[in-house]
Amino acid sequence: MSKYVKNIYSILSTPKFNLTMSTLEQRCVNTIRTLSMDAVQRANSGHPGMPMGMADVAFVLWTEFLKHNPVNPKWTNRDRFILSAGHGSMLLYSLLHLTGYDLPLDEIKNFRQWGSKTPGHPEYGLTPGVETTTGPLGQGFATGIGMAIAEKHLAAKVNTSDKKIIDHTIFAIVSDGDVMEGVSQEAASIAGHQQLGNIVYLYDDNNITIDGSTDLAFTENVRARFEAYGWHTLEVDGHDRVAIRKAITQGVAEKNKPTLIACKSHIGYGSPNKQDTSSAHGSPLGPDEIRKTKEFYGVDPDKEFHIEDDVLAFFRKEVDKGAKLEGDWNDTVAEFKKTNPDHYHTLGASTSGKVSIDFDALVETFPENPKGIATRKASGMVLDAIAANIPGIMGGSADLGGSNLTEFKGHTPFTPEDRAGNYMHYGVREHAMGSIMNGMSLHGSVRPFGGTFLVFADYCKPAIRLSALMHQPVVYVFTHDSIGLGEDGPTHQPIEQLASLRSIPNLIVMRPADANETAAAWKFAFSQNSSPVALILTRQNLPEVARTSENDASLTAKGAYIFKDSANGKPDVIFLATGSEVAIAHEAWKKLTQKGVSARVVSMPSWELFRQQDMSYKEAVLPAAVTNRVAIEAASPLGWHEWTGLDGKVIALNHFGESAPFEKLYEEFRLTSDALVKAAGY
Amino acid sequence: MSKYVKNIYSILSTPKFNLTMSTLEQRCVNTIRTLSMDAVQRANSGHPGMPMGMADVAFVLWTEFLKHNPVNPKWTNRDRFILSAGHGSMLLYSLLHLTGYDLPLDEIKNFRQWGSKTPGHPEYGLTPGVETTTGPLGQGFATGIGMAIAEKHLAAKVNTSDKKIIDHTIFAIVSDGDVMEGVSQEAASIAGHQQLGNIVYLYDDNNITIDGSTDLAFTENVRARFEAYGWHTLEVDGHDRVAIRKAITQGVAEKNKPTLIACKSHIGYGSPNKQDTSSAHGSPLGPDEIRKTKEFYGVDPDKEFHIEDDVLAFFRKEVDKGAKLEGDWNDTVAEFKKTNPDHYHTLGASTSGKVSIDFDALVETFPENPKGIATRKASGMVLDAIAANIPGIMGGSADLGGSNLTEFKGHTPFTPEDRAGNYMHYGVREHAMGSIMNGMSLHGSVRPFGGTFLVFADYCKPAIRLSALMHQPVVYVFTHDSIGLGEDGPTHQPIEQLASLRSIPNLIVMRPADANETAAAWKFAFSQNSSPVALILTRQNLPEVARTSENDASLTAKGAYIFKDSANGKPDVIFLATGSEVAIAHEAWKKLTQKGVSARVVSMPSWELFRQQDMSYKEAVLPAAVTNRVAIEAASPLGWHEWTGLDGKVIALNHFGESAPFEKLYEEFRLTSDALVKAAGY
Repeated sequence: MSKYVKNIYSILSTPKFNLTMSTLEQRCVNTIRTLSMDAVQRANSGHPGMPMGMADVAFVLWTEFLKHNPVNPKWTNRDRFILSAGHGSMLLYSLLHLTGYDLPLDEIKNFRQWGSKTPGHPEYGLTPGVETTTGPLGQGFATGIGMAIAEKHLAAKVNTSDKKIIDHTIFAIVSDGDVMEGVSQEAASIAGHQQLGNIVYLYDDNNITIDGSTDLAFTENVRARFEAYGWHTLEVDGHDRVAIRKAITQGVAEKNKPTLIACKSHIGYGSPNKQDTSSAHGSPLGPDEIRKTKEFYGVDPDKEFHIEDDVLAFFRKEVDKGAKLEGDWNDTVAEFKKTNPDHYHTLGASTSGKVSIDFDALVETFPENPKGIATRKASGMVLDAIAANIPGIMGGSADLGGSNLTEFKGHTPFTPEDRAGNYMHYGVREHAMGSIMNGMSLHGSVRPFGGTFLVFADYCKPAIRLSALMHQPVVYVFTHDSIGLGEDGPTHQPIEQLASLRSIPNLIVMRPADANETAAAWKFAFSQNSSPVALILTRQNLPEVARTSENDASLTAKGAYIFKDSANGKPDVIFLATGSEVAIAHEAWKKLTQKGVSARVVSMPSWELFRQQDMSYKEAVLPAAVTNRVAIEAASPLGWHEWTGLDGKVIALNHFGESAPFEKLYEEFRLTSDALVKAAGY
Repeated sequence: MSKYVKNIYSILSTPKFNLTMSTLEQRCVNTIRTLSMDAVQRANSGHPGMPMGMADVAFVLWTEFLKHNPVNPKWTNRDRFILSAGHGSMLLYSLLHLTGYDLPLDEIKNFRQWGSKTPGHPEYGLTPGVETTTGPLGQGFATGIGMAIAEKHLAAKVNTSDKKIIDHTIFAIVSDGDVMEGVSQEAASIAGHQQLGNIVYLYDDNNITIDGSTDLAFTENVRARFEAYGWHTLEVDGHDRVAIRKAITQGVAEKNKPTLIACKSHIGYGSPNKQDTSSAHGSPLGPDEIRKTKEFYGVDPDKEFHIEDDVLAFFRKEVDKGAKLEGDWNDTVAEFKKTNPDHYHTLGASTSGKVSIDFDALVETFPENPKGIATRKASGMVLDAIAANIPGIMGGSADLGGSNLTEFKGHTPFTPEDRAGNYMHYGVREHAMGSIMNGMSLHGSVRPFGGTFLVFADYCKPAIRLSALMHQPVVYVFTHDSIGLGEDGPTHQPIEQLASLRSIPNLIVMRPADANETAAAWKFAFSQNSSPVALILTRQNLPEVARTSENDASLTAKGAYIFKDSANGKPDVIFLATGSEVAIAHEAWKKLTQKGVSARVVSMPSWELFRQQDMSYKEAVLPAAVTNRVAIEAASPLGWHEWTGLDGKVIALNHFGESAPFEKLYEEFRLTSDALVKAAGY
């Protein structure tokens, strides 16, 4: 048992406790607790301990500090609140309901049920007032850092020396689990480096995790660690609201460092038998224990989901406060529009959520070129042409800018000295990069893209999943996309990463075959607003073919198209390929054509987009009657049979790569046009 | 430019430099540098800067501290050396060649070429003396923590109060990138918590990353951070060998804390135009710059791959030293065997690399049971029966022991107080768990398994990849394997994780359908020694069918088998399923059988193992003539067409899950026996 576990009766007898027991404020706090306990009990599933432990902190934050408007959860200049410890979702749902968001009590009663707005973990887009999807630990923490960067960036572009139109704070409640995860540690280092004074994180320092006391695995000095990152840290009794008030005030006042407030709280506060134990963490308390806990709070144990009128009235003052806050802000902005029309325009353009550029006017078609260029190079050239024209663009790379070619012409680094900078040096921190890009996108004012090697997509996979789950149009620039990177060897050669990305729902994976497909892929990425896009780009040069109306690169947006057809348009063989292997398929096509065989090459830059096409287009590209199909891809074969069927063949890699010049690897691994011809039976 | 960048001429003029310039020791150090420069130049690819910068440190470590035997790189009690900054591989290859490992100079000349033993990044199993595959940053760092745990554990089991048979140190060279990565931060926290005094890490604190100065993204106080984790830290001039010697001595002497020595080094040391710049990081210096650098070192610029005789002789003293070290140790062990036969037996059993248990005698067959149990529960019961019988077993979980059911009967936690403990509380640190398990396995004395929820396989994916690349028999226990976990919702419901794992070469993924398949999966996992295994287990109960000789659960090891066949053995329809969906397929089979349709259910617990079977077995299970195939799996459909073909159907999930009781989800998402029957055309 942890050293922090105290006998409940010693708490009961503290003067502080008895003094505040009967006040309205205390009843408000206890209502958060009882709603949470009751909802978890009715669902017979969930986490009551955290809402009970952090109710005091949340109450002070939400009723005295949080600048929000429950009636308009999308108000541009609202503070952001993130429940990084997403398992404590009932804390957030209680607050949302009580302060007047569109979340009726019936939704609370329907916690964790089909069709409710109160899922097990908070989900962005489903519940008004939920700023980001949380639950996978560390993600909310890191996503908030992205929101803080976005706030600083937007403020730098919009505010004038005397008018602060944009000035909001990113608050979060984070848990032991959040600060243990690597992604939060990477992000915390970035936040400290970037001196993000607009962050105030409340750390639920309750010394309990699912396995038991944090003494089992977690005895580091968390405050000292955060100070080493450059954070401002404080510590308070998580049930002393006066101290909490003071600490949040200090956190908000600290403008040059992010703040972490360690709140020494009691998980399952008030539960006679479960407080301060891991049994309060992830299971309902049980009817008996709930009765006893309600008795401890001094509320009627026979009432469920009960909210006293004066308690509700107190919380609902947030509605009027919020309306006034936003109303005043709107007035200020209206005035600002007159005196600073350019800045006002920037505000609108950055927060429109859309990219409005004439892509085709900015990006020229790449001419035929047998030697060609790498698709990463083409990507860089496209970015050079368009990036500076996109309001809210924020490029970046996890310390591979010169390799990913993400450092577009005219970029300036985002730094503590230059908040208008539109490029992030993330350091060697792929995971934080992904989560931070999610936060930037969710903030609504930044259009982020970020690069690393494709093999390191693994390092940021949990963040990519959340981009997809939250429908955020984050662009991942994954270069060095196969054994084509050569000498760096198997640790750097992706094999399974394409299949892994293709299996994520709502992620659009695009592996262009040449520079023109690359441009079309970028065009697609910026043409929509609801899906993350993973661009899969080569290190090595790829030939550029002449484009005609038949194989115009704009067909890239259809996911697959006829890259080269047989003269009669009735192929006996279809080669399917993506990216760098399209050129190999093209070679094989030439060989078969010379032999008089009718062959077709289908370039398939995006399986996801091709699946979205209608049946007739699919049939036109891949006629069902043609079963002699051979796919080639320098990656795992997993998934290709969807296109080739049992009768087709897949030339791919079911093993890891090796260290050698890439031409040698393609030859040794038989990723060749001869292998294609042979597999086709010729 | 970094504040640490100094003019080369100021270094040239330091007394320390000139004094040592002509000594044998200095020439030894410079030989490491010139070999590295020459190899990178000849390969026209690689990273010369780090070997040049860390040559002084590496020289002192390898010739004065590292307890090793170049002639027997597998000596049990050797110190372990990890080059976590794997891109500086030429540093390691130079040391291996010079100190007499089986790595001839021709291999150095063949750096990064096809078939060489000197790949771009160090690869375990390919090059003698390489303890772990490195390159993906942070991995070597975290893997070393696993080796350190294994050393402490083995020492506790083998050593007696007066005989220290096992006592070695884990050394590593780690880079800025290594300490930025989240995985290293998680692992560092564990190392501090566990008070692993057998770790001495040398941090190449050169203030340069690929993007440029670390000032761009990395200004935290690294030493303070490590002290917050509970580490002992030191700082030295990375070119002052007297200071390096002193620091390593202090690090080795510190027995209760891991040690981090920040070595202030100059990347590309000695290169007049590239030292202290990122251009020395990842590209050859170029012939001209190499000439100038060699001139600076005072060596003949016309000579390539040159090693002076006295330099080689000095390094090769390691061969005799190593032979004596191991010889003395062998003598000690021979004596120890006589006086402590039980401990000697433990040493042999722990380091045999094999699990020798009579599995079938220990694990009873689970009886028919319509209600059944969850496969995670079955897994826990199997572990209860066998774990304590396996020498070197080390269970664990990333703070989900009670959910993963990894806390087997009789386990004791590994702690600073009890190094014989055979269970790791990893905290909420999935990534470090994976890398640490790799280290334990590589150490050769521990058989690790560790659990988390399947969805969090994403968090440790880079470590799983390395388990597979290094052929380590690590077992990943992934429970809560689908929407079957219910109310926790989409953040916790795996969809794409199965496909992602199945795409990794050399990983065996097993998703058992019931308790008996689960037992068979564990039996397989411990029956082999060359592949990691991912066990995919349910949260919810699954029915247990009666087993006969036709569908004996031992067939699990074949990857797929006929779970239920039609009476005539000539099915018109084949249902394919894994895990929890086998029961649904079984229901559909009953419905078709009642209708008089000949149907078959194939349980496919492991695609990888099924692919390894011969053609006749595959044809017997999935006859080519039967094209009416319907697959069902509560996961992404990606990959299933390999088994169903274009004519078959796949009932799966191409979207994320939702929060609700799991029965409701299966119904709403139409993962039902009725859907199977309908898809089969009945």
